[in-house]
Amino acid sequence: MTVRVGVIGVGMIGQDHIRRLSHVLSGVDVVAVSDVDVARATAVAEGLRSARAFATGEELIVDGNVDAVLVCSWGETHEQYVLASIAAGKPVFCEKPLATTQEACLRILDAETAAGRRLVQVGYMRRYDTAYRAVREVVHSGAIGLPLLMHCTHRNPGVPGYYKGESMITDTAVHEIDLVRWLFDEEIAATQVLVPRRSRNGGELQDPLVLLLEMASGLLVDVEISVNIRYGYDIRGEVVGEDGTVELCNPSPVRVRREGLAADRVPVDWRERFIRAYDVELQEWVDAVAGGGDFGPSSWDGYAAAVVSDAALHALATGTRVPVALADKPDLYTK
Amino acid sequence: MTVRVGVIGVGMIGQDHIRRLSHVLSGVDVVAVSDVDVARATAVAEGLRSARAFATGEELIVDGNVDAVLVCSWGETHEQYVLASIAAGKPVFCEKPLATTQEACLRILDAETAAGRRLVQVGYMRRYDTAYRAVREVVHSGAIGLPLLMHCTHRNPGVPGYYKGESMITDTAVHEIDLVRWLFDEEIAATQVLVPRRSRNGGELQDPLVLLLEMASGLLVDVEISVNIRYGYDIRGEVVGEDGTVELCNPSPVRVRREGLAADRVPVDWRERFIRAYDVELQEWVDAVAGGGDFGPSSWDGYAAAVVSDAALHALATGTRVPVALADKPDLYTK
Amino acid sequence: MTVRVGVIGVGMIGQDHIRRLSHVLSGVDVVAVSDVDVARATAVAEGLRSARAFATGEELIVDGNVDAVLVCSWGETHEQYVLASIAAGKPVFCEKPLATTQEACLRILDAETAAGRRLVQVGYMRRYDTAYRAVREVVHSGAIGLPLLMHCTHRNPGVPGYYKGESMITDTAVHEIDLVRWLFDEEIAATQVLVPRRSRNGGELQDPLVLLLEMASGLLVDVEISVNIRYGYDIRGEVVGEDGTVELCNPSPVRVRREGLAADRVPVDWRERFIRAYDVELQEWVDAVAGGGDFGPSSWDGYAAAVVSDAALHALATGTRVPVALADKPDLYTK
Amino acid sequence: MTVRVGVIGVGMIGQDHIRRLSHVLSGVDVVAVSDVDVARATAVAEGLRSARAFATGEELIVDGNVDAVLVCSWGETHEQYVLASIAAGKPVFCEKPLATTQEACLRILDAETAAGRRLVQVGYMRRYDTAYRAVREVVHSGAIGLPLLMHCTHRNPGVPGYYKGESMITDTAVHEIDLVRWLFDEEIAATQVLVPRRSRNGGELQDPLVLLLEMASGLLVDVEISVNIRYGYDIRGEVVGEDGTVELCNPSPVRVRREGLAADRVPVDWRERFIRAYDVELQEWVDAVAGGGDFGPSSWDGYAAAVVSDAALHALATGTRVPVALADKPDLYTK
Repeated sequence: MTVRVGVIGVGMIGQDHIRRLSHVLSGVDVVAVSDVDVARATAVAEGLRSARAFATGEELIVDGNVDAVLVCSWGETHEQYVLASIAAGKPVFCEKPLATTQEACLRILDAETAAGRRLVQVGYMRRYDTAYRAVREVVHSGAIGLPLLMHCTHRNPGVPGYYKGESMITDTAVHEIDLVRWLFDEEIAATQVLVPRRSRNGGELQDPLVLLLEMASGLLVDVEISVNIRYGYDIRGEVVGEDGTVELCNPSPVRVRREGLAADRVPVDWRERFIRAYDVELQEWVDAVAGGGDFGPSSWDGYAAAVVSDAALHALATGTRVPVALADKPDLYTK
Repeated sequence: MTVRVGVIGVGMIGQDHIRRLSHVLSGVDVVAVSDVDVARATAVAEGLRSARAFATGEELIVDGNVDAVLVCSWGETHEQYVLASIAAGKPVFCEKPLATTQEACLRILDAETAAGRRLVQVGYMRRYDTAYRAVREVVHSGAIGLPLLMHCTHRNPGVPGYYKGESMITDTAVHEIDLVRWLFDEEIAATQVLVPRRSRNGGELQDPLVLLLEMASGLLVDVEISVNIRYGYDIRGEVVGEDGTVELCNPSPVRVRREGLAADRVPVDWRERFIRAYDVELQEWVDAVAGGGDFGPSSWDGYAAAVVSDAALHALATGTRVPVALADKPDLYTK
Repeated sequence: MTVRVGVIGVGMIGQDHIRRLSHVLSGVDVVAVSDVDVARATAVAEGLRSARAFATGEELIVDGNVDAVLVCSWGETHEQYVLASIAAGKPVFCEKPLATTQEACLRILDAETAAGRRLVQVGYMRRYDTAYRAVREVVHSGAIGLPLLMHCTHRNPGVPGYYKGESMITDTAVHEIDLVRWLFDEEIAATQVLVPRRSRNGGELQDPLVLLLEMASGLLVDVEISVNIRYGYDIRGEVVGEDGTVELCNPSPVRVRREGLAADRVPVDWRERFIRAYDVELQEWVDAVAGGGDFGPSSWDGYAAAVVSDAALHALATGTRVPVALADKPDLYTK
Repeated sequence: MTVRVGVIGVGMIGQDHIRRLSHVLSGVDVVAVSDVDVARATAVAEGLRSARAFATGEELIVDGNVDAVLVCSWGETHEQYVLASIAAGKPVFCEKPLATTQEACLRILDAETAAGRRLVQVGYMRRYDTAYRAVREVVHSGAIGLPLLMHCTHRNPGVPGYYKGESMITDTAVHEIDLVRWLFDEEIAATQVLVPRRSRNGGELQDPLVLLLEMASGLLVDVEISVNIRYGYDIRGEVVGEDGTVELCNPSPVRVRREGLAADRVPVDWRERFIRAYDVELQEWVDAVAGGGDFGPSSWDGYAAAVVSDAALHALATGTRVPVALADKPDLYTK
């Protein structure tokens, strides 16, 4: 069976996912697209084997030829499309964020809980990265003892002009916020933000920051967030256990020796670093839609990320440690 | 357009390729299978969406539903299926070796040349490995100057019972034989085999060997072949240029610190090391069949590998340096 | 000229320094020893070429054959011997700590300032480590831009029975406290201590801790202190600048491939890791005494380390951020 | 006891050793110097604490104040000074080569054997390098099984103008020739030289070469010799055993991340790479002279290196495999 997907939002990320679904992955076809820019949707549809352009996302969702929905539109619109997909009883993959407020996330949780089954997956692709999966496997194997600390670095060579102070948390560190919840199978209990000396590369932006995340067990995570560090896109992480540690290796394919150096490459950007994780993420989602597996990051994960991000923003604004208060977790998300 | 593939030979490698074509790659479907064991072919066909089992490879090849052929049968049968595919005017992907003798390879060259277009691709998957592609890119960028030497190691943790002395060349080192021809865009001019102290792990087998390959330009390649080294599947390579070098990095996703060591992983076997290269190899072949790219390793490459392997076996038997004599290269293969 | 050194305190560290002065370094001789255990001092003296045992450190200090003094006695006694050396106008190398209270350190500062010249050096050996010196050189070269952050890990496989909670700061992290002041040529302005989940390996001890050090410029340093991590003695550090970073390499001499791993060694303990730094530290001190160089870490550095350690202990006890208040820096220490 | 050393030959290497003996090592003093350039010897002597310049090496050797002799003069003169030292019954450290012909080496062997005790040490400093010692320890621990192969690279950024073709063997590869005899405790049985494509950086020089050394056990060593590779001084080595391998790590103190690379340093030249090995070599020799240890590389080692070098030169000239024929080994050298 081929899964027929409708894609809402055909901007950069939407078109990249369409390429992926059409030319890289197995058992899936893009049959419908929509966009706030109807002409763009029409143009994209014409470039595909047999896809139709819809005037609105809502029409696309209810169309009989669409088995599952991929939401790549502007964040403000995520809630409405996810809710409409749930109402239509169709699986929906929503790029992060699930929604732009905690309240909106709770409305999605309520709707999905009422539907009585998992329909929503949120686009946290790091869970699908080979290296992070190996970290998780080592942690849970017991080889390094109980985990006590984790050190993360999240470095970007630069950021676009619309990037602003809170993006450091909501766009960038949110990946680590989701990651550590998955890595350690526990919630974040409190957060704090440290403010170091500012880089001239970031202009007015307070860059870097250090985000502290206290897990429910007491495990402490520190995350360096540097978004104008020029030299490359460098994602690192080391989990410190009682008896040892496990860390991500730098993923350079080759080492070059020249001009006094023996040098590995650092990825240029997130596309280079995580391109395979995106492929695996969507293939596993397609397989889950077709009945061959489980869905990944849930509405609950999207909600938790929103709550922790809000707490971190509050911590940054006030210079204090801010506890994280989550709603009760519905049974649907405690498999 | 979906490429409809017929697979001849559904043993271990055949079934793995069927899995790949059915569940991993895009734009392709397995519609026909055959095997010397007809019952097995039938069973495999029943497990697929809509595939038919054929009594013979020849019948499969000429079937109107088959767009392209994948040959995974026993090496002795490769020639007949490749020739039949050429006769039918259909693209054929043949697992290595192209054929078991130089003469058979020449018959294939003649047939394809007569057909006037490339139809045959041989399964040398290393050309599709990310790291080897990066090596090639560095070499051709000029960053290390003109290449003068290459050091390769090809280490296997162990080999199956039917593996015999000449397999060190024809099954194992043949990968490097093809690789260096592609890496440096030139032919191998002579070969020699050095015989070190023997490992007790290999029993009667002369393991390890060191294969020397002299390229036409004088560039010298040495290849350590160790096939019972226990600790892992370790493929390494360093090209030494006039001004610097480039080498493959060990592809460990994580580094674990415990019990006095900071340790990277070594792949367990060739599947772990090259699984992605197989995916990319067949996806690019499928795309080429569908019109979206060029075919990879050619009949000429398969022929050259056979000639060099024969020379290396002669060098091993006689303890001498053996020149490599190739036929004239048809224009078809000099694009 | 041979520098004639008198050593006060011939316990483990004292005897190791005597071995170093007698059998490793150039231009120096041990001519006098003393110890609270007089019999031990006598025995040690007899094992040397021509050394005399003194009943008290004070007598040793004023002896005419003694050019310079090395204080390796119990920390409580450091102040008296350093003051006596200053009074005698003799160069004195004092193992850390300079003294056990801020007030005692200030008395030493006063005495040395009154003497009008540098006589005291404190035993912070990391400043003499090749790798840390290379880090400092890169930072000051401008190659990574202005430094903004530093991540340190200080891991011990285990600690002796008398090690207690405050030792995490005063014995262990004090090395990083001195190090970052030297690395960045600036004082520490405030400190905070984070308390992660506790390792079962440390029993009642709160292990690990994360020490935060805010430098005067705003540069932020985090130090993981893990003292029962079993796997080895692992000292790491990465300085994050505006445009790049520099970090210590793991100092393994060899990489061993076996049993699925490609493994570097982690040092067993501080002796293995810093043995050469101790050699260089004392050789440079001997050379400075003989007139061939400058003295290293000063009384001011010893005083600053004491003040920052006290602040960190206060921060640990109260869970708050504690500013560091230093006395005015005498001109003697601002070369 | 202080060992009083006389140094014959005060050119670059001689002066560097004088610096080492005077300012780095323990228990040793330079009391006499001589040089073919008497004015230079006098100038050097005046710069030392209390050293006398001698008109000839022979006078220096027999002087009553000289306990031991260090020969750093031109290679042609080594034999006469070593023989004179043996005749005087004094320990002598001779920089490589022991002598410039096999016959001269045999005369030294005869003289030392007649003296009935070890007096001569030859300057093969790699045996004193921490990393090579760790390789040897791993090999002899059995951790990688019986050694079967060794891959070496010996790369220089450039060579001086007087460097000529045979220097590739006699000046450069001779280090590996001695090294593998020590590493594996066995003699070299045969040798062969492979000639790759030539680097434009070396002008008329055939650079690189690959030297093959067959050990008596069958263990095979290949040595890449590249002496104009620009990027640095890169000494590598990997011993391949039945079950695993051990290799030298690149000795970079720090890793710098900038401009897309995560880069380790390569040493600039042999001084940087082996400075500590020279220190350890001479300290152990001084200790052996003083009675605290054994002498290192012997006259036999110097003789064997000469014989193997001659064989390798013959192999290079003739393009053939050349067996190595050694004289019978005197009992003095088989402890």
